[in-house]
Amino acid sequence: MQLSELGEFGLIKRLRAKCKNVPPEIMAGIGDDAAAIKTGTGKILVTSDMLLEGIHFDLSFTTFRQLGHKFLSVNISDIFAMGGKPKYFFISLGIPGHLKPEDIDNLYSGILKVAKKSGVAVAGGDTCASGDGLVLSGTLIGTADRIITRSGAREGDGIYVTDTLGDSAMGLMILKSQKSEVRSQKFKNKNRNLKFKTQNSKLKTLNSKDVLHLIKKHLMPEPKPLKNTSKVTAMIDISDGLLIDLSHICDESKAGAVIFRDEIPVSAELRHAASISGLDPLDFALRGGEDYVLLFTAPPGVRTGAFKIGEIIKKGRFIIDRKGRKRTFKAEGYEHFK
Amino acid sequence: MQLSELGEFGLIKRLRAKCKNVPPEIMAGIGDDAAAIKTGTGKILVTSDMLLEGIHFDLSFTTFRQLGHKFLSVNISDIFAMGGKPKYFFISLGIPGHLKPEDIDNLYSGILKVAKKSGVAVAGGDTCASGDGLVLSGTLIGTADRIITRSGAREGDGIYVTDTLGDSAMGLMILKSQKSEVRSQKFKNKNRNLKFKTQNSKLKTLNSKDVLHLIKKHLMPEPKPLKNTSKVTAMIDISDGLLIDLSHICDESKAGAVIFRDEIPVSAELRHAASISGLDPLDFALRGGEDYVLLFTAPPGVRTGAFKIGEIIKKGRFIIDRKGRKRTFKAEGYEHFK
Repeated sequence: MQLSELGEFGLIKRLRAKCKNVPPEIMAGIGDDAAAIKTGTGKILVTSDMLLEGIHFDLSFTTFRQLGHKFLSVNISDIFAMGGKPKYFFISLGIPGHLKPEDIDNLYSGILKVAKKSGVAVAGGDTCASGDGLVLSGTLIGTADRIITRSGAREGDGIYVTDTLGDSAMGLMILKSQKSEVRSQKFKNKNRNLKFKTQNSKLKTLNSKDVLHLIKKHLMPEPKPLKNTSKVTAMIDISDGLLIDLSHICDESKAGAVIFRDEIPVSAELRHAASISGLDPLDFALRGGEDYVLLFTAPPGVRTGAFKIGEIIKKGRFIIDRKGRKRTFKAEGYEHFK
Repeated sequence: MQLSELGEFGLIKRLRAKCKNVPPEIMAGIGDDAAAIKTGTGKILVTSDMLLEGIHFDLSFTTFRQLGHKFLSVNISDIFAMGGKPKYFFISLGIPGHLKPEDIDNLYSGILKVAKKSGVAVAGGDTCASGDGLVLSGTLIGTADRIITRSGAREGDGIYVTDTLGDSAMGLMILKSQKSEVRSQKFKNKNRNLKFKTQNSKLKTLNSKDVLHLIKKHLMPEPKPLKNTSKVTAMIDISDGLLIDLSHICDESKAGAVIFRDEIPVSAELRHAASISGLDPLDFALRGGEDYVLLFTAPPGVRTGAFKIGEIIKKGRFIIDRKGRKRTFKAEGYEHFK
C-alpha cells in the first residue's frame, strides 16, 4: 500500500493504534488538537505543528515576519480549540544555507509580536542546517482548567463557528495567481484595483481592499479564544476545512451532523471575489481550510455569541439548504498525502 | 552577514537575546539541553530535537527502526542531561511521498521500543507531506525534582563523563565509506572481516565485531541517566563533541577547564579502528560528537562512578598530557551552518 491510498487521517489512525499504551494522566492524546496531561495539581496542553516550505508556505508570497506570525498563530489556535491558554513555545528550525541571519530575525519578530500579544514565552527549541527548504516545527504548551476535546458532542447540540469561513482559501488562490503583484508590493496602495487572472485565464478586476482582507486572513490568521466555554461539549479549530473538521467531531463523538447551508457565515469580500471569478463562495467556506476559526458544539438554548450553522444528530452527515433540499457530505478538504 | 559566519551557536545567542522576556516560572530556557518550567507543585522539562534527512541521517545506511530508536534516544539524552525523567513524546513528521506506510510503521516500532524501555508515552504530534526528504521533529517532556543546568560548575570541581567517547564518530566514518556493505547486510556475520577503505584510499581489514560495535554506537545510541545527581553542579550531554559541550559548561558557568588528555575514556574498538586507518582516536573522542554520553561536574571527593577527565579552573581552557605538556583548546566539533 502507498501513503497516498492511506491518506493523512488513515496514517494518524494507524499510528494512534500503535501508540495506545498511554498512562492514565494523559487525558487526551493523538487525535485531538492538543494532548492534555495532568501534572501534579494542574493540567497542561501540548500541541505540535510543522510548517514546510513548498507545502505549507511559499516564500515568494509571504514575508518572514508574516510567516512567524502564522507559525505561532496556528499553534495558538490548537490550544484555544481545547479551551486552554497558550503559555510556552518551543521552536525547531531547519534553515537552508542561503537564508540570512536577518531573515531569521524577521521570522522571530513575527513570532514575538504574536507571543507578546497572547502572553506566550518563547522558551526553547533547536536550530540546524537544512539541505532543502525552510522547516519550522513548533510545540506550544498551554494550561487549562477544563479540557474540551472533540468527543463530547451530543444529539441535539447546536454546531457553531466563531467567525466567517473561506477567506483564507480565497486569499491563497489570489496569492498563487498574483505572485508578481505581491512581490512588487503593489498592494501597499489600498485603493488600487487589481487585475486578477481567473482559473479560465480571463482577466478580472478585483478591488484591492477586498484582496488585502482575503490575503491577510491567509497569511496572518488571528485565532481568538472562545470566552465562555463552560457549556461547550466539543471543540476543534478549522484548519483542514469545515467538512473535514466537523467530521472529526462526529467521528470522535460517535454522532452525526446536519449543516444549514445558508447559515454558514461568509464575508462580503469572499462573496465579491468569488462572484468575479465565477466560483461558489460556499466551496471555499466548506472545504477551504486554514481559517483557524473555532468550531464547537453546545446544548440548545446556550447563548454563545457565535454563528449557529447546524445541529448534531444521531447518525449521518447532511447539508440542508433553505428550500429543504438535503444532501450528504463527506470529509472533503485538505488532506496530506492524498 | 551570512549564517555561515554567524554559525549555529552565534545564531542561538542572537535568538536567545531576542527572547529574553521570559516569565519567572521558566527556570532554564534557550541555551540549555531542555527548558525547565515550574507548573503548580511540580517542574517539567521540555526538549526539542529536529532530525533532517541528508543532514542528520542517511537512509542508505540506517533502517527506519534504527532511526526511530535514535530519534527518541537523542531527546531522552537531553532530559537526562538536566537530571530529569523522560515522560511524554510528541512527534512531528514531514513524510516524502515515496515512503510506504510500512516505513513509518518501522520508524514507530523503533521509537516505541525505546519508549517502553524508558517509560515514555507517545502522546501526540503532527504529520504532513514533505516535498523533499524525511523530517523528524520531536519534543520530549520530562519531570525532575532538581534541575541541573550548564551554569553551576565551580572552580575545583572535577569534570566527568559517563562512558567512552568517539565511538559514534568513528562508526559514522565507517558507515560513510561502507554503504554498499551495510546495504548488503553482510554485517550479519559477526565473524567476518571487513575491507575498509581509509581516507587515503588504502584497503585495510577491520574486524567486523569492532565495526558492529562502532556503527551501533552511531545508529542506536543508548543514553543512560546518572543515578545519583545530588552533588552534581553542572551537566550536559555530549552531542556536538566533548570540546564544544565542555565549552558550553564553561561559558554558562563563567569558568575555565583543564582536560587530562590521557584520562579520556576510549574504547578498544575505537583504538583498533583508528590505528588501522592511521588516525588519532583522541580526535574522535574530543571532536566527534553524537556520543549521547553525559558530561558533568561535581566537587572533589564526590564518588560518581564515572570517568574523571579534568577539572574546572578559574579561567582558560587547556588540554594537558601525561608529560605535563599543555595546550589551549577551542570549541571545535560539529556546528551547523559553518
